[in-house]
Amino acid sequence: KHILVIPGDGIGPEVTTWGKAVLEEIGKQGGHEFTFDEALMGHAAIEATGNPLPDETLEKAKASDAILFGAIGHIKYDNDPSAKVRPEQGLLKIRKELGLYANLRPIMLFDELLDASSLKPEVLRGTDILFFRELTGDVYFGEKKRSEDRNSASDLMIYHRYEVERIAHKAFEAARARSKRLCSVDKANVLEASRLWREVVQELAKQYPDVETEHMFIDNAAMQLVKNPKKFDVVLTANLFGDILTDEASQIAGSMGMLASASVGDGTGFFEPIHGSAHDIAGQDKANPLASILSVALMLEISFGLKEEAKKITDAIDKALKAGYRTGDIADAHTDKAKILGTTAMG
Amino acid sequence: KHILVIPGDGIGPEVTTWGKAVLEEIGKQGGHEFTFDEALMGHAAIEATGNPLPDETLEKAKASDAILFGAIGHIKYDNDPSAKVRPEQGLLKIRKELGLYANLRPIMLFDELLDASSLKPEVLRGTDILFFRELTGDVYFGEKKRSEDRNSASDLMIYHRYEVERIAHKAFEAARARSKRLCSVDKANVLEASRLWREVVQELAKQYPDVETEHMFIDNAAMQLVKNPKKFDVVLTANLFGDILTDEASQIAGSMGMLASASVGDGTGFFEPIHGSAHDIAGQDKANPLASILSVALMLEISFGLKEEAKKITDAIDKALKAGYRTGDIADAHTDKAKILGTTAMG
Ligand SMILES: CC(C)[C@H](C(=O)O)[C@@H](O)C(=O)O
Ligand SMILES: CC(C)[C@H](C(=O)O)[C@@H](O)C(=O)O
Repeated sequence: KHILVIPGDGIGPEVTTWGKAVLEEIGKQGGHEFTFDEALMGHAAIEATGNPLPDETLEKAKASDAILFGAIGHIKYDNDPSAKVRPEQGLLKIRKELGLYANLRPIMLFDELLDASSLKPEVLRGTDILFFRELTGDVYFGEKKRSEDRNSASDLMIYHRYEVERIAHKAFEAARARSKRLCSVDKANVLEASRLWREVVQELAKQYPDVETEHMFIDNAAMQLVKNPKKFDVVLTANLFGDILTDEASQIAGSMGMLASASVGDGTGFFEPIHGSAHDIAGQDKANPLASILSVALMLEISFGLKEEAKKITDAIDKALKAGYRTGDIADAHTDKAKILGTTAMG
Repeated sequence: KHILVIPGDGIGPEVTTWGKAVLEEIGKQGGHEFTFDEALMGHAAIEATGNPLPDETLEKAKASDAILFGAIGHIKYDNDPSAKVRPEQGLLKIRKELGLYANLRPIMLFDELLDASSLKPEVLRGTDILFFRELTGDVYFGEKKRSEDRNSASDLMIYHRYEVERIAHKAFEAARARSKRLCSVDKANVLEASRLWREVVQELAKQYPDVETEHMFIDNAAMQLVKNPKKFDVVLTANLFGDILTDEASQIAGSMGMLASASVGDGTGFFEPIHGSAHDIAGQDKANPLASILSVALMLEISFGLKEEAKKITDAIDKALKAGYRTGDIADAHTDKAKILGTTAMG
């Protein structure tokens, strides 16, 4: 299997180093042959080529069996709303070009980290959520306009039936294989795009009579996720709502540094931590590499069907956490100071 | 002062009964004269007139000095995405017609309720946030379209400079009067409407050099609000993001049943709990009336400048909570069963 590594920006390179190292070790132990290539995207690519997604990167991506990505973004652009070229354009474009319409974000809870969250352990215990976030539609990709006098700006929030159908099928199938509960999140009391979303999900639900389907408004979902996260199992939602809800849900797992994601669709799968580029700690050996390593576990399971190898990884992480090892983001007042590790040691 | 009461749907009538009763009592004790009228909106208005916002309601609203509103919505419409007439249209229309562009949602924490939240008390303690949610623009009011074959649907997310300016000024002024910190939330790394939002806020910030202004992406804000709510003071955001963030933030206060909101702008102020119609408990004397009563406190302070009277109300609530009284939504395992009250008793 040929893997393209795209380290990206900020802490991206540090954390993907360890994702890749784990893949190599899995290859060695299990007799699998993984070959690697590397490519630029985001701020790193803008600096080198002026383009956040160089053609070469896209070609390499299409030719690979899976992609391991780090993180994207730079504070320089965040504070310059009028910048024409932005790192994020690279990520959005590769999602679109590779047809990565389904972003899977599992919210896994390591028992050892129950206390690292700001939520009470009794609220968290037993939580296990799998988000299906639509990734190539919505207000992210609808037409963007700025009036000539620059005094009005708009983005079109738009969905097409087929876009909702294809991700809904994936989510229903996952629900079928899990606890048979699906919650679709929208804002159908206000938005026409959400009303189409709800109509389509209601229709498809008839094909999955064994799955209990619920519809919830996004404002209520954002609230329930804090109040009682256990009530969710498979959550299906649009691009923008998924962006917000999954970041919020990261606090269930104690830290964004623990959450991996898989983007799949028409072709090559794309695996990345859900955390950002975190420039404030970049290059300081402080970032938590576990989200990148867990992204590799998702790659093994989803792209290569290597379930046992994926489990080896989560077991190893579990063991490290049980032994008391923590990176700064998941340490708490009770953590043995000597066991607070940097990126390299944790990797 | 002449107050229009719009009880609305579900638990709306039960809770506004107590908001109104408290106003009458305040009037009696302080020698203020409050007169009342009542009008229909939402599902209740559709049932009676076919129109979620009858002209008569709008006329009465414009002629009043303040409006006390209950709740809106009905499950019947939620599960019928193709319904043409919907209760929520009444609320959206009155917001637009009265020019209620600024929705203030204070997240107040009663010490006694620290344990009612799913968040750890040490995370919560000291939290005091004032949200400014823009209320008459965004994807809520942009053009809605459905293709002829009904297979595509869209909503235009649009902002105009003046819309951002007028609410930003209000938020900056509030920040100036509080702890001089303002956090503006957007998604400027993806959305053009957010980039205009950020540009305008950056410009206005120069007029408030004494206020420390920060910009945050909505996904990050949804996360930080759970992780460390204390870091926020005044939060300024768009209509849709504000809808999501404030519902999420309700968990800081222990329950949606404790949160009031004030919508202000060009004319008459509009005061309402942030909770919904909760049809599942309607008519059962179970709803928490404190959000409606706190809405009255906001009315006294904001529309009538009666600060002391407003404080009388929050003091009285504090006293009831200190004495151990709770409605079901804010009770916990430690609550004396005999002190769990219904709507009437708590009112
Ligand atoms: C970086 C940004 C464009 C991106 C998004 O909003 O999709 C990120 O927040 C994510 O969730 O992957
Ligand atoms: C009922 C609905 C239209 C409304 C909104 O989304 O604005 C509600 O959720 C609110 O926050 O007041």
